[in-house]
Amino acid sequence: MQASQRISGILGGGSDGWDVFNKAREMIDTGTPVTELTIGEHDIRTAAPILQEMHRAALAGHTGYASIPGVAALRREVAQRVQERTGVPTTSENVMITPGGQSALFAAHIATCDAGDTALYLDPFYATYPGTIRGAGATPLCIQTHAEDAFQPRASDIAAHAKGAKSLLINTPNNPTGVVYSRATLDGIAQVCREEDLWLISDEVYDTQVWEGEHISPRALDGMAERTLVVGSMSKSHAMTGSRIGWVVGPRDIIDNLINLATHTTYGVPGFIQDAALFALQLGEEFEAEIAAPFRRRRDIAHKVLAGQNAVSLVPAQGAMYLMLDVRSTGMTGEDFAFALLEAHQIAVMPGESFGTAAAGHVRVAMTIEDSAFEAALKTLCSFAQSCQNDA
Amino acid sequence: MQASQRISGILGGGSDGWDVFNKAREMIDTGTPVTELTIGEHDIRTAAPILQEMHRAALAGHTGYASIPGVAALRREVAQRVQERTGVPTTSENVMITPGGQSALFAAHIATCDAGDTALYLDPFYATYPGTIRGAGATPLCIQTHAEDAFQPRASDIAAHAKGAKSLLINTPNNPTGVVYSRATLDGIAQVCREEDLWLISDEVYDTQVWEGEHISPRALDGMAERTLVVGSMSKSHAMTGSRIGWVVGPRDIIDNLINLATHTTYGVPGFIQDAALFALQLGEEFEAEIAAPFRRRRDIAHKVLAGQNAVSLVPAQGAMYLMLDVRSTGMTGEDFAFALLEAHQIAVMPGESFGTAAAGHVRVAMTIEDSAFEAALKTLCSFAQSCQNDA
Repeated sequence: MQASQRISGILGGGSDGWDVFNKAREMIDTGTPVTELTIGEHDIRTAAPILQEMHRAALAGHTGYASIPGVAALRREVAQRVQERTGVPTTSENVMITPGGQSALFAAHIATCDAGDTALYLDPFYATYPGTIRGAGATPLCIQTHAEDAFQPRASDIAAHAKGAKSLLINTPNNPTGVVYSRATLDGIAQVCREEDLWLISDEVYDTQVWEGEHISPRALDGMAERTLVVGSMSKSHAMTGSRIGWVVGPRDIIDNLINLATHTTYGVPGFIQDAALFALQLGEEFEAEIAAPFRRRRDIAHKVLAGQNAVSLVPAQGAMYLMLDVRSTGMTGEDFAFALLEAHQIAVMPGESFGTAAAGHVRVAMTIEDSAFEAALKTLCSFAQSCQNDA
Repeated sequence: MQASQRISGILGGGSDGWDVFNKAREMIDTGTPVTELTIGEHDIRTAAPILQEMHRAALAGHTGYASIPGVAALRREVAQRVQERTGVPTTSENVMITPGGQSALFAAHIATCDAGDTALYLDPFYATYPGTIRGAGATPLCIQTHAEDAFQPRASDIAAHAKGAKSLLINTPNNPTGVVYSRATLDGIAQVCREEDLWLISDEVYDTQVWEGEHISPRALDGMAERTLVVGSMSKSHAMTGSRIGWVVGPRDIIDNLINLATHTTYGVPGFIQDAALFALQLGEEFEAEIAAPFRRRRDIAHKVLAGQNAVSLVPAQGAMYLMLDVRSTGMTGEDFAFALLEAHQIAVMPGESFGTAAAGHVRVAMTIEDSAFEAALKTLCSFAQSCQNDA
């Protein structure tokens, strides 16, 4: 029996750029130790007090169907958090709780695009973006950013593709580049959205991981609150990846529509997880800083390590838990470099080519292992790049 | 800004038949006690040992991203359970774990239907069915069943609408009717699916609640394993509604496609919930019988109460946690009867009209309150129907 064209085409065909990752997993499975710097997952687990609160809520009986838009107290807390951090008036009615950020990204595209509508996104991109758009039945259209701009998107490039499109998906702080979009970048994007009547889907799941400059939510820019859907998540900010909890923030009428969608897709989020999420949010910014601290520390380590060489250069590491390293001086593609590094030193990084074409000749390093091992791996990577230069 | 047509049309317009339910909630909120027999949720909570296992798994560190198709041990357990109960060879590769049955229903429609394809379902229907199909971008086409057949669907009615359709959604044991589809019914359905090349989406979430006859999974019928997607859930069988955990069972290649979809929609199910689900499944059939026992008991109570009167007649109550009562002898619609009962006696039941048109003149009673209160409410309902007959 034939699957639908939509689902069988969701991956879009061709290499998915995850060969290095898969090869590393294979090595690990067959007993070869590998230093994994691939995936955006903390090297800590969800904090015990959050799990205790989850258990308390479950034992207290919050195990039945939860309210589909989200538990009232959690929606209020998210609204208040967003309002405090962005200055945009936000109430519970602007918030829907979702089972994670990915679910929010999918729902946002269903809410804004009909079948066949064009949905824009930027290269380099988080691996699921084009498939999310295809899964929602829309047509993904990718817009390049440029290494020479440190991957800050150009409004003119977006405008050149925006005619007739329905939505634009952006992500700041950015995965995979580690760049935080500047005010100028976001002003330019907002202007295109207003002029071309685009929905802006703003993935802000790294908003607590900012090392340089400031995180600006584009929903706060002139005329943007009515056309912006912000995707949030507790995965990165609270080390709750496995709890699958996030949200969409947007205009009230689209949130109403999203609640109708949720009734027919997810049927809500476990109540005990929502209670734990509320507890975690109420731990405040100090807790979030604690969760972000290891990445801040490792970024400092990276600056020190990279200062002593010139084989590898660093894309400005302004936020998120990744470093994007330019290895073009070796004359190799990112993928060749990553494969060679894996083979020579059992260190796994993601080729820039895993995230589209704009970051070709780069590799992404997740700062997700313990400091001294991280420092050692990065030193090895740099001297390996140096030796590749010498070979070239 | 305009939402997509798909999401703004998801409810299909018109009354959703939930006015009685909403009125009851309003009465409760404003301090009037109401006996609620509306929603399919147990009057017990998830068992403490299952929650303890969930907490153990979380504290042990199963709080990171879980495998997207589902934890290996849980997929194996579900496969084994399905194989044992149906005789159909089933392996982990035939199983994808989902965040609840509703999510599985949605994914199954995405997997089988492209935008604009026709997806069939039967009236009366569980409230989310048409919206699920619309949310997936397909076109719902409803096929009537008939009170005089005790709502067992006729193959000829399905065949008459099947030309060019992609899928048929069925549910046995059935919500809202409480009917269990007979072998003859399912053989007829299977034949239509084979002849018209339809996918069969078989919602079997009540498969542990069978009071009469036997539950037959249509996947076990000749030539059906290759064209059937079975939707399962632990909500009803294990009183885990709020944990949002279920599965799809089907041919391996469509499961592969569904895993790609999940990567872009849900990104998996919390690992600690999956561990708890595995533990719960391993409690075996005895535990499931314990969870089902109250409904079996209350059905017996209903038989006793209803035997003493002739105002209300019972659709054969063969499975699931509901009774479908025919109140046409009162001359009232189900909705009018339900409203009048709520007003006169503060007892809330669902009008048959909430589930389409086929069960007009009926009301659905959820057997979800404590036995003696249930018996008293049912007695009141019967004498109220009697008094309505006399008024007529």
